[in-house]
Amino acid sequence: MRRLARVAPLLLAWTATLSLAAEQPPASVILFIGDGMDEHQVTLARNYLYGAEGALAMEQLPLRSSARVQTVREDDPGQFRYVADSANTATTLATGQLTSLGRIATSATTDQDQSTILEAAQKAGLRTGLVSTASLTDATPAAFAAHTAHRSCQSPADMAKAIGYAAATQQCMADQHSRGGKGSIAEQLLAANIDVLLGGGKRYFAQSSKGTDLQKAAASQGYKLLSRRRELLEKGPGSKLLGLFAPGHLPVEWIGEGNRRAQPIALNWLGEPQFSEPFACVDNPDHRGTPTLKEMTSAALTRLSADNAKGFFLMVEGAAIDKQAHRRNPCGEIGELRAFDLAVQAGREFARSHPNTLIIVTADHGQAGQIIPLPEYFLAWGNRQYPPGYYAVLKTRSGELMAVSYATNAPPNGRGEVHTGVNVPVYLQGIDAAQVPPLMDQRQLNRLMRDHLGLNAATD
Amino acid sequence: MRRLARVAPLLLAWTATLSLAAEQPPASVILFIGDGMDEHQVTLARNYLYGAEGALAMEQLPLRSSARVQTVREDDPGQFRYVADSANTATTLATGQLTSLGRIATSATTDQDQSTILEAAQKAGLRTGLVSTASLTDATPAAFAAHTAHRSCQSPADMAKAIGYAAATQQCMADQHSRGGKGSIAEQLLAANIDVLLGGGKRYFAQSSKGTDLQKAAASQGYKLLSRRRELLEKGPGSKLLGLFAPGHLPVEWIGEGNRRAQPIALNWLGEPQFSEPFACVDNPDHRGTPTLKEMTSAALTRLSADNAKGFFLMVEGAAIDKQAHRRNPCGEIGELRAFDLAVQAGREFARSHPNTLIIVTADHGQAGQIIPLPEYFLAWGNRQYPPGYYAVLKTRSGELMAVSYATNAPPNGRGEVHTGVNVPVYLQGIDAAQVPPLMDQRQLNRLMRDHLGLNAATD
Repeated sequence: MRRLARVAPLLLAWTATLSLAAEQPPASVILFIGDGMDEHQVTLARNYLYGAEGALAMEQLPLRSSARVQTVREDDPGQFRYVADSANTATTLATGQLTSLGRIATSATTDQDQSTILEAAQKAGLRTGLVSTASLTDATPAAFAAHTAHRSCQSPADMAKAIGYAAATQQCMADQHSRGGKGSIAEQLLAANIDVLLGGGKRYFAQSSKGTDLQKAAASQGYKLLSRRRELLEKGPGSKLLGLFAPGHLPVEWIGEGNRRAQPIALNWLGEPQFSEPFACVDNPDHRGTPTLKEMTSAALTRLSADNAKGFFLMVEGAAIDKQAHRRNPCGEIGELRAFDLAVQAGREFARSHPNTLIIVTADHGQAGQIIPLPEYFLAWGNRQYPPGYYAVLKTRSGELMAVSYATNAPPNGRGEVHTGVNVPVYLQGIDAAQVPPLMDQRQLNRLMRDHLGLNAATD
Repeated sequence: MRRLARVAPLLLAWTATLSLAAEQPPASVILFIGDGMDEHQVTLARNYLYGAEGALAMEQLPLRSSARVQTVREDDPGQFRYVADSANTATTLATGQLTSLGRIATSATTDQDQSTILEAAQKAGLRTGLVSTASLTDATPAAFAAHTAHRSCQSPADMAKAIGYAAATQQCMADQHSRGGKGSIAEQLLAANIDVLLGGGKRYFAQSSKGTDLQKAAASQGYKLLSRRRELLEKGPGSKLLGLFAPGHLPVEWIGEGNRRAQPIALNWLGEPQFSEPFACVDNPDHRGTPTLKEMTSAALTRLSADNAKGFFLMVEGAAIDKQAHRRNPCGEIGELRAFDLAVQAGREFARSHPNTLIIVTADHGQAGQIIPLPEYFLAWGNRQYPPGYYAVLKTRSGELMAVSYATNAPPNGRGEVHTGVNVPVYLQGIDAAQVPPLMDQRQLNRLMRDHLGLNAATD
């Protein structure tokens, strides 16, 4: 009996292997991109949510690596820059090729279209989906299915506007229909015929191109249009989905108590820092009625996997981790990282019943947030020590205090924090460890995904 | 022929396995600690040294994980702090137990000695060594063989001094001989009878305790005393080594051209930032005559492995990565990270001929340095955007520009930058991948090392 008990699981495992080999479930990829989610932002959220002994869902994926973030210069594509933006890094994840800041799946200087994994998946008959808490026309989702010289070319109305800070070679004019271009990102996303598009950005689609309203065009293309959470949760099976749940980016899930963010340290007349009181994070009332990233992810997975013998490619972006860090809003950032992590959890649950699913969780680039010491630490060194940027002390869920600093761009009325050039974490499951080197770059991540789906690498 | 070519390597591998099993080389551990070397500092050094496509030696180790850095409060050991120092984290790596800021292998509040892996290795008959670019009495090496309430208790002269910023429970008086204590760190390091001690800190050993000069005591204990690079390179075989190559910490290998460091951004009368010119890193003339960390590591490995059937435990610290980041000296920091990485390379070369060697490369805690955009980026956003901390633009070895910011503690005459609370990277070789979870903590790293050496975990 004891011997049988030992052998039985082995027999079961062997039988399972046989039946898997026989059925060969379709290969699918879910790429989760936490925008600006470097390891420092991950640590910040984990500490707040689960304490010093905790772990996020993404951190429990079986494999991890670290990816170099690479950006070439628009004015000299043979040279690298060491800080990226979401446009050029999403381009590399989508295409396996490098480009310059601001570009959406086009090459630096020469403005050639770079073919994406989503396009290759479509050609191979796989289903595709893009899900984001940002406007769907924002850089990260855009780079998987549109090709423009600049991320600002979001809608028909943007195409004639000059972009003051961008190079002459990156103005939207190059992509105008009148010049033989493919038009704005919104138009290109619809033309791409993607099965699932869920996010924000209604105002970019509530426009006309060549005399046709984009949303009407979408409906006539067979899209079911969704604009409320309830519609998403109650949607029937079958049709393609275009969910636009906010005019621009979706509202964030969390804010600080009393809407508090990080602030510059006030000094008294002696030049001594006056640290402000700790605060906790609370639900953002403005998020009510908006689907969570997890709900959008689950809806996308249901639609993409139903009666599908060929698999799918799905990109899910937690966009506002970055956007809230830019705004020095630690509760916004932590709440969005939590929402992203819950979406990863939904992906893992899906993979349990769909075993040939590769899950990659990564970030596009680093952000400004740093965990630094508490006021008591600075005060112990003397009465003139304090951080120079924006600073907040958070009351974590476990009741401990944690201080966060944002200090990459100074002026109070300035454009906010900037990105950093740190390596980004990569968490993976559904792939052989031997295929995952300890140090990678974002082109290699593209290759891993193409290999898993059996797609050839880009040839352009 | 073709078939034989395919089979031959398998046969060789199989034969090698057999002969390994027969000889069973002694299990050894080399623990490399890059002080303050979080992934941001790693990326900074890699970019400078090897460019956007490069990789450090440590990044090429076959396995990687990420470690939570955990610190409890002295005033309430049931609560965590989210920023650590080198004393409490080296303690955790050394003992497998948590403690509070500043403590050297003693427990928070209760001040009980926590037993270290070095002590356990000695009891089991293994050889031991500590190598550092800091004074040997500095927190990281100290925590492996000394037990004090505070890291400042470095030498006999320190034992009666009050430490203004430390808790009443962490004053050195508790460790005075007259109160039944074990005395200063320098005395305890000598009493520990470690086979190899190489680093700085001569001034802490050029003191007397209970009427005996510490260096004379060391010589009568059988130590060969070394104080110059040439003595280290020419040392004969056999005896225990005490190398003290500087009065305090060793001089750093690199400095900025013209001794330049990061600086606050000057503003003109319109409030517009005046960014200063880029600079490169150059050799520090003050380092001449000082052994490199690689030379000390190689000397230690030779001594520890010669005619040794029982293996060894060696800790190698790159101490000034942290110290130079505190001082906003990017060239100092990069040069020390490079020196550390070359020592790792020496460790890897050693492991090639000593296959039962576990190598762990990690950091104790995070530091302030961040790679942020170049001046041209800030200027493109307008003429009032600039980083609020200390900023430098470096000319990397590949001729590209990279900007670094230090912005955690403001005042120009202040105590310098502070540590951050980010997870730290862990690079490993010589261990089965199944034993390395993707997320760890520093207690687990201690357990991995003890397991590899066949030592029981601490029971206190």
